[in-house]
Amino acid sequence: MNARFRFRIGSALAAMLLAGVAIEATTLTAEAQQEGRRRRRSDAQEAAPLELTPAQVAKLTEVANSRSLNMDDLLSAAKTFTPSGRHDEYVLFSSGGQSGQVFAFGVPSMRLLRSIAVFTPESWQGYGFGGDNDRVHEELMINGKPVLWGDTHHPGLSETGGEYDGQFLFISDKANARVGVIDLRDWETKQIVKNPLTISDHGGSFVTPNTEYIIEGGQYATVLGYGYAPIEDYQKSYRGMVTFWKFDRAKGRIDVSKSFAMELPPYWQDLSDAGKGASDGFIFMNSFNVEMATGGIEDGNPPFEAGASKRDMDYMHIIDWRKAEAAFGAGKVKMINGFPVIMLETSIADGFLHFTPEPKSPHGVDVTPNGQFMVVAGKLDPHVTVYSVAKVKKAIADKKYSGSDVYGVPILDFDSVMEAQVEVGLGPLHTQFDDKGYAYTSLFLDSAVARWTLGGEYEAKNPEQPWKLVTKTPVQYNIGHLAAAEGDSASPDGKYLISMAKWSVDRFLPTGPLLPQNFQLLDIGSTGTDMPVIYDMPVGVGEPHYCQMIKADKLKTWTVYPEIGWNAHEQRMDPKAPKSGSEGVTRDGTNVLVNMTAIRSHFKPEHVEVNEGDTITWRITSTETAIDATHGFCIGGYNINLSLEPSEFVEFTFVADRAGTYPFYCTEFCSALHLEMAGYLHVKPKGLTAAPALDSVQAGK
Amino acid sequence: MNARFRFRIGSALAAMLLAGVAIEATTLTAEAQQEGRRRRRSDAQEAAPLELTPAQVAKLTEVANSRSLNMDDLLSAAKTFTPSGRHDEYVLFSSGGQSGQVFAFGVPSMRLLRSIAVFTPESWQGYGFGGDNDRVHEELMINGKPVLWGDTHHPGLSETGGEYDGQFLFISDKANARVGVIDLRDWETKQIVKNPLTISDHGGSFVTPNTEYIIEGGQYATVLGYGYAPIEDYQKSYRGMVTFWKFDRAKGRIDVSKSFAMELPPYWQDLSDAGKGASDGFIFMNSFNVEMATGGIEDGNPPFEAGASKRDMDYMHIIDWRKAEAAFGAGKVKMINGFPVIMLETSIADGFLHFTPEPKSPHGVDVTPNGQFMVVAGKLDPHVTVYSVAKVKKAIADKKYSGSDVYGVPILDFDSVMEAQVEVGLGPLHTQFDDKGYAYTSLFLDSAVARWTLGGEYEAKNPEQPWKLVTKTPVQYNIGHLAAAEGDSASPDGKYLISMAKWSVDRFLPTGPLLPQNFQLLDIGSTGTDMPVIYDMPVGVGEPHYCQMIKADKLKTWTVYPEIGWNAHEQRMDPKAPKSGSEGVTRDGTNVLVNMTAIRSHFKPEHVEVNEGDTITWRITSTETAIDATHGFCIGGYNINLSLEPSEFVEFTFVADRAGTYPFYCTEFCSALHLEMAGYLHVKPKGLTAAPALDSVQAGK
Repeated sequence: MNARFRFRIGSALAAMLLAGVAIEATTLTAEAQQEGRRRRRSDAQEAAPLELTPAQVAKLTEVANSRSLNMDDLLSAAKTFTPSGRHDEYVLFSSGGQSGQVFAFGVPSMRLLRSIAVFTPESWQGYGFGGDNDRVHEELMINGKPVLWGDTHHPGLSETGGEYDGQFLFISDKANARVGVIDLRDWETKQIVKNPLTISDHGGSFVTPNTEYIIEGGQYATVLGYGYAPIEDYQKSYRGMVTFWKFDRAKGRIDVSKSFAMELPPYWQDLSDAGKGASDGFIFMNSFNVEMATGGIEDGNPPFEAGASKRDMDYMHIIDWRKAEAAFGAGKVKMINGFPVIMLETSIADGFLHFTPEPKSPHGVDVTPNGQFMVVAGKLDPHVTVYSVAKVKKAIADKKYSGSDVYGVPILDFDSVMEAQVEVGLGPLHTQFDDKGYAYTSLFLDSAVARWTLGGEYEAKNPEQPWKLVTKTPVQYNIGHLAAAEGDSASPDGKYLISMAKWSVDRFLPTGPLLPQNFQLLDIGSTGTDMPVIYDMPVGVGEPHYCQMIKADKLKTWTVYPEIGWNAHEQRMDPKAPKSGSEGVTRDGTNVLVNMTAIRSHFKPEHVEVNEGDTITWRITSTETAIDATHGFCIGGYNINLSLEPSEFVEFTFVADRAGTYPFYCTEFCSALHLEMAGYLHVKPKGLTAAPALDSVQAGK
Repeated sequence: MNARFRFRIGSALAAMLLAGVAIEATTLTAEAQQEGRRRRRSDAQEAAPLELTPAQVAKLTEVANSRSLNMDDLLSAAKTFTPSGRHDEYVLFSSGGQSGQVFAFGVPSMRLLRSIAVFTPESWQGYGFGGDNDRVHEELMINGKPVLWGDTHHPGLSETGGEYDGQFLFISDKANARVGVIDLRDWETKQIVKNPLTISDHGGSFVTPNTEYIIEGGQYATVLGYGYAPIEDYQKSYRGMVTFWKFDRAKGRIDVSKSFAMELPPYWQDLSDAGKGASDGFIFMNSFNVEMATGGIEDGNPPFEAGASKRDMDYMHIIDWRKAEAAFGAGKVKMINGFPVIMLETSIADGFLHFTPEPKSPHGVDVTPNGQFMVVAGKLDPHVTVYSVAKVKKAIADKKYSGSDVYGVPILDFDSVMEAQVEVGLGPLHTQFDDKGYAYTSLFLDSAVARWTLGGEYEAKNPEQPWKLVTKTPVQYNIGHLAAAEGDSASPDGKYLISMAKWSVDRFLPTGPLLPQNFQLLDIGSTGTDMPVIYDMPVGVGEPHYCQMIKADKLKTWTVYPEIGWNAHEQRMDPKAPKSGSEGVTRDGTNVLVNMTAIRSHFKPEHVEVNEGDTITWRITSTETAIDATHGFCIGGYNINLSLEPSEFVEFTFVADRAGTYPFYCTEFCSALHLEMAGYLHVKPKGLTAAPALDSVQAGK
């Protein structure tokens, strides 16, 4: 075969490709999908029971020995390995910590499926890179200045009847007291709300059982409404707070106009959980630093770490949110920075705020699936303390107080509301639940997960005595939160538990002084002491704080937008979206409108000519309808990159303030002719009369 | 046991913790490390050959059946599962595509170990969130405006003698024609250089065999120096280019003053590779669109995808870089936008630029490990074309030309330099090599990896005939680049190969319309047709473009900075770093200097009082020396977050232009009292006389 013949093959192929570019790519995808389906079908066929022959055992043993695997390793591998094309059973939605994002992992494979940009602009997703008036930047403004990152802490899946319903995900930004709303149809952030009272928060986002409200609790007390007061006036002028963000499920947005907050004493409010079932209608919220220590190590005072840890007891806040809602409805609020706040005197007078003691520097408060108990882990106490909601209700009704705090909040008598204390180990932080009547508590100082038994109606579910430690599994290292499958919902699944270790130290190849975190997967499918770690997944993209694990089949994810010309922010077809055949560039004075379409493998138009200083409104519709046929669109040198998912419409504006010749191109590798999916933005300099030429030009000679 | 007693345990623990916070954490870490070592030792002990008992086989079969795994799945699991605490054998440094970052994966586990921020600010790493004069933002300016993202394409590991030496990693930004320099001691970006000639690039970063130069090739032709010319003047005024960035290994920086470029015709230069061994001294660079098509679908012209694909042949550029270096040394340059450029007439006259035809719309050009052959994949031709460097040298010496292009560049006769053509399949893009004389080519349209045999001195290494296709393995879907273990170096390892699929379609749980990419791991340890896919890893944090896989033990990574007070940008101890005992806040007019230290679990000072409008210079030294004892530092509401790795010193400046009370806190969960590692920035409003108080204040009553 000579070279010329071969080139003809190439030309024929090229002609075929060029004849119908869209068809080409769609067809290829169909073939590829077919191949994928074939593989998965054969997986299913082979689901007929496997019986290993001696030769197969020998082969497997040989491979295991070549990599020094033992029997436990092989079992762990078999429990977690997810074959090519097979889907995971659960999705783990995890905060991304200081990355400002949310991460989604598959379980049991533990593979990071996707990052979802929330508080930090992210260019792959085209999030915050849409020109001069980008919506994301607008929403990220605080006091008129952009704050382009977040410290995401607690993801909260929307719930119906205390069960994850798979519709929305809420996520809090501790650093800047913001809440983000993610629509789980397209996994994109639709709204960011800044708390008008405090700069930073901690105890959000948690939802009430039907997602009536998203709860955001404070942390470091400040002067509400971003105010100033000298630290000497701490007790007088600093305050804590809890905010109730009203969620409008139909609109998929927080309705700020129906939201309100409660003033709280300047303790450092920490985590919160909404009651459900037996405790429906309550919010439980921990606090620490009831000492109201103000630090000042530089002046010889005890540092915060010591001052805030002096007392044996802090206060759990018990809030009847329906009564609070009624007070807000009745206008019993003070406006602070334009936001309605129920003041302490109202909460006390109307009887919907109580405290009860909790040992010591508490961190997690977690409501059992049936709603009957609240489990508090005091991080400087080796026990978890379990409270009974029935006892709480009775104590409130009976006004069984042991006194009140300096702000007048009544304190329910500890012994009257406490159900049990279970010694679990050093540094207990957070608790999750399974389907077998076990609770699981993270032990930061022990670097372990404790399994212990619940009492009450859970007693019959497992062989052990109630309120007893059953076993501990070491984790590596310094576990913070943990998450079991649907483990904070009304019906946990058991099966899997994630240990979110804060330090990985030596567990992975070193990655510089900044090391990944370690997500360890524990098999909690058995009872008793059998609770092995079966996978370690480094997380080197942020320090996740908390996560929730939802059964994958609850998610009704879109993979292609419903109609061509879809406005993903508004979740509707946008009449402004350019249609195929209506592309072009029009001018009105110095305002230029670009109407563009994108399909494999070209943008139309391919040239956009403007004058230096023009204001450009640029609209692009992806006319793709095939799954995964995403295009990117960037303009080199201008800070612009979009992600145009199948059928999506995007509009952006910018001032073409720098003359020159700027290539634009598709930034998602979309097709064989992806590199050719490009064009030029020509920005003609002011006052230009003739084009410059290079000395060496020999073209055309 | 009564509650009071339990609280005493808590108090004793708290006292212990508070007595010596640093010691506490170090001790805990030591214990945790011991546990880790124990686990790994026991792994080693169990490296004594495993023999599976019938009961163990039964257990393994039971688990496999519960998850519908077949024998191939179990083998793949055993080949990839990496037990808790065990390190991976290779590190895969991957571009992050439009995320603007670099990602590091472990192989064979395929776990994402870490992201390294390069062109896009990233808050977890504190990269670009250091106040008003952040170095990263300065370096990311283009024409005086921030361009805060990149489209990272080709990572290039530094080399010595054509082998990865593990010292540096270079990464290109296609969208904005920039090159980043990462120091692999601490895995941080140290320098970003903007190309002064073109807005966007493609064919970088590739190094010469001893990292003398980092090569950056262009792509979409523009008017060099960010100029403007109407598209009608394309052939006269638009140009391609290749830039040679001189690397100063001792300083760990590109030396711009010793760097230069070459003017090239306005073809779209594509990938390049440096010769080594037999071809040392050459650069080989593909091009396409030698048609010089200028698109214009909106005017009824053929779109770029068609116009740029008309001809059967494009031109491989063959550059003798030592001769080019000599021309630059001799001053045979023209300054364009302040940068020395060797013009085409010089390159032609001095005989260091030649072309040779290459079929058709070529993408990859890859030099064999011995340097004797260059493999070109023409993406619209089903063959790879292999060129012999010996023949190229002879053709140059003999002036064996088939003509010259319109710019006068001599074209070496194709048949005189071509060694072989191998039919591999549809859409060949890139080629890598192993230790057994095989080459591996990605097939975009086939969605497959082809294994084929090299000739010449490689013939003896495998059983097959030379220059023949051996087998193809389907991959899912639309593979772009691929990377074998050290597969583009002078001595590839074989063993593992990564297929970088552009589309995942249905392979993973859907993640909205934006789906992850798919990194598939192929076992290439055998010969012949045995080349299975053994792992699928979704990559949902960007679209990686190319990656390189280095043996992990070549990296000499720091996990703690060498001295307390380390300036990581300069890689030296910084005399400005505050020392323990020298903390404080000092004022000079409206300039405030904060000297702070950070250690578990407090910042010192804990209060910083300034006036609205003050300019703050804030210096923090982490006095930690334990591995993984990283602290974060954020100021809520001000766009500031730092990553303070063990012993690191960081300085930042900002104007305190918003009055109020701003909590600062540690954003890395560092210790049991991490939440207490906090303080306040008090920004006193202008003209304030008295502090505001809330109506409801009852404190002190």
